[in-house]
Amino acid sequence: MRFARLGPRGAERPALVHDGTTYDLSGITPDIDGAFLSDDGPRRAAAALAAGLLPRLDTTGLRTGAPIARPGAVICVGLNYAAHAAESGVAPPDAPVMFLKTPSTVVGPDDDVVIPRGSVATDWEVELGVVIGRHASYLDSPGQALAHVAGFVLANDLSERTFQLQDSGGQWSKGKCAPGFNPTGPWLVTPDELDHRALRLRSWVNGEPRQDSTTADMIFGVEHLVHHLSQYLALEPGDLVLTGTPEGVALSGRFPYLAPGDVVELEIDGLGRQRQEVRAWSPPEGGRTVGAAATAGRAR
Amino acid sequence: MRFARLGPRGAERPALVHDGTTYDLSGITPDIDGAFLSDDGPRRAAAALAAGLLPRLDTTGLRTGAPIARPGAVICVGLNYAAHAAESGVAPPDAPVMFLKTPSTVVGPDDDVVIPRGSVATDWEVELGVVIGRHASYLDSPGQALAHVAGFVLANDLSERTFQLQDSGGQWSKGKCAPGFNPTGPWLVTPDELDHRALRLRSWVNGEPRQDSTTADMIFGVEHLVHHLSQYLALEPGDLVLTGTPEGVALSGRFPYLAPGDVVELEIDGLGRQRQEVRAWSPPEGGRTVGAAATAGRAR
Repeated sequence: MRFARLGPRGAERPALVHDGTTYDLSGITPDIDGAFLSDDGPRRAAAALAAGLLPRLDTTGLRTGAPIARPGAVICVGLNYAAHAAESGVAPPDAPVMFLKTPSTVVGPDDDVVIPRGSVATDWEVELGVVIGRHASYLDSPGQALAHVAGFVLANDLSERTFQLQDSGGQWSKGKCAPGFNPTGPWLVTPDELDHRALRLRSWVNGEPRQDSTTADMIFGVEHLVHHLSQYLALEPGDLVLTGTPEGVALSGRFPYLAPGDVVELEIDGLGRQRQEVRAWSPPEGGRTVGAAATAGRAR
Repeated sequence: MRFARLGPRGAERPALVHDGTTYDLSGITPDIDGAFLSDDGPRRAAAALAAGLLPRLDTTGLRTGAPIARPGAVICVGLNYAAHAAESGVAPPDAPVMFLKTPSTVVGPDDDVVIPRGSVATDWEVELGVVIGRHASYLDSPGQALAHVAGFVLANDLSERTFQLQDSGGQWSKGKCAPGFNPTGPWLVTPDELDHRALRLRSWVNGEPRQDSTTADMIFGVEHLVHHLSQYLALEPGDLVLTGTPEGVALSGRFPYLAPGDVVELEIDGLGRQRQEVRAWSPPEGGRTVGAAATAGRAR
């Protein structure tokens, strides 16, 4: 099954996409969230579809939101493709390297990318995202992992490399959490629909190829990651795990960082495609932040 | 004002503590969360108190929960006291070092500390926590920070040092997110009630002093931190910022790590006191994780 969330930011409507038709899931669940995923929601949605009980949804003019409600946590894995580790100038890790993004970074797959104020090194990262479907703590083996996975998503783990690597004291999250830095979707696809062990994943900037790899090249596969992470934290329904990016990012030095006017596109087989227009940060309406002094200067 | 949340885990009731009496805030708000804090909730609560409209709450036998609902993000600052940086074997940072804990780690101030499975180095960290009251993105100066702060809390930033520093590839979050690793409270105290720039903060293990310092010794103060962090991410109402711990943790080598049976206590002037009993991890009811094989082995 393919789930989606369509509508204005903060007011997305849950939907099911089947054979090219979009159905309204509002009668089944208020949202595609942890409660829905852990409480047998996908099965109930499938039953309602089979029984002809789901109304069609007219998608004309509707924005595509992230296909999951804001997660409780976004857990990221770094350096999980050997060639990307090499282009980053580091050795492949012995164990998964985990860091976090703030959940508020999750936005729709086609929402604009806003370059953070003061950024000189905003970079793209196409990644396979794993959505947790069932509480997972201290799993006993990787073989238990998939029973705790609700499905997969396409994600862009946007990164500001100066913030991540130079301003940070070595802790990457500083360059991973700018507003809108986690375009996700368009679909949440259940595990039965694809082979997550061999998905081609690609990115482009202004139509030129950047990343082109396969999840078969992961150092640590999905089952290994979910099992491993569950030893360090409790994964909860609705949480999003980003599994790392392959080579072909700007950090390599082979491509320029993102600039206003650029168009970023990303795709993973079976998980759909994203398209983001890049724009410069500008002050909010009214020209000042709440509580700002009359003359707003550069702050960093 | 002092806010609290009392009752069973996941079903805490919002309360206001005034002159030694606890009042029920359920009629004012369903929870002490971002919506309450950003929507003038504290002022409405004060008005209801002054008008004699708040019923008393019988606290007999009630568990003390964290004084805020689960945050959207827990943003931590590392190495923010010079003597703690020294005992950790590193130089004081030039800029705040930011990392994240998963929001699900937030629990009540007196809930048991469970040593993670496989842990050999579980450590305490008394910290001043800052609760965000208003959306803060790209603040123009530290002078704007306090207008975005709802109040302060006492927090224990529990850490597993092997997970944090050796299993991690250098990214600290792996040792910061075990279940229950963020006891918070007992109270959320509004900024007018104390001088957050000079609060004594202390910890004890089995009654023996461990940490004893003052927030005046922070390298980067609260206003600096909130301003600085807002350049890298959007702070949201209800988010929790932990401002770093002073010297006197087990990582220093001067004290043993926590063991089952230990009692940890923490206190910050004006923010109350915590008391946690330390116990070993044990398998959940039934002896197996969901989906576990019949014989559960050590997984890491």
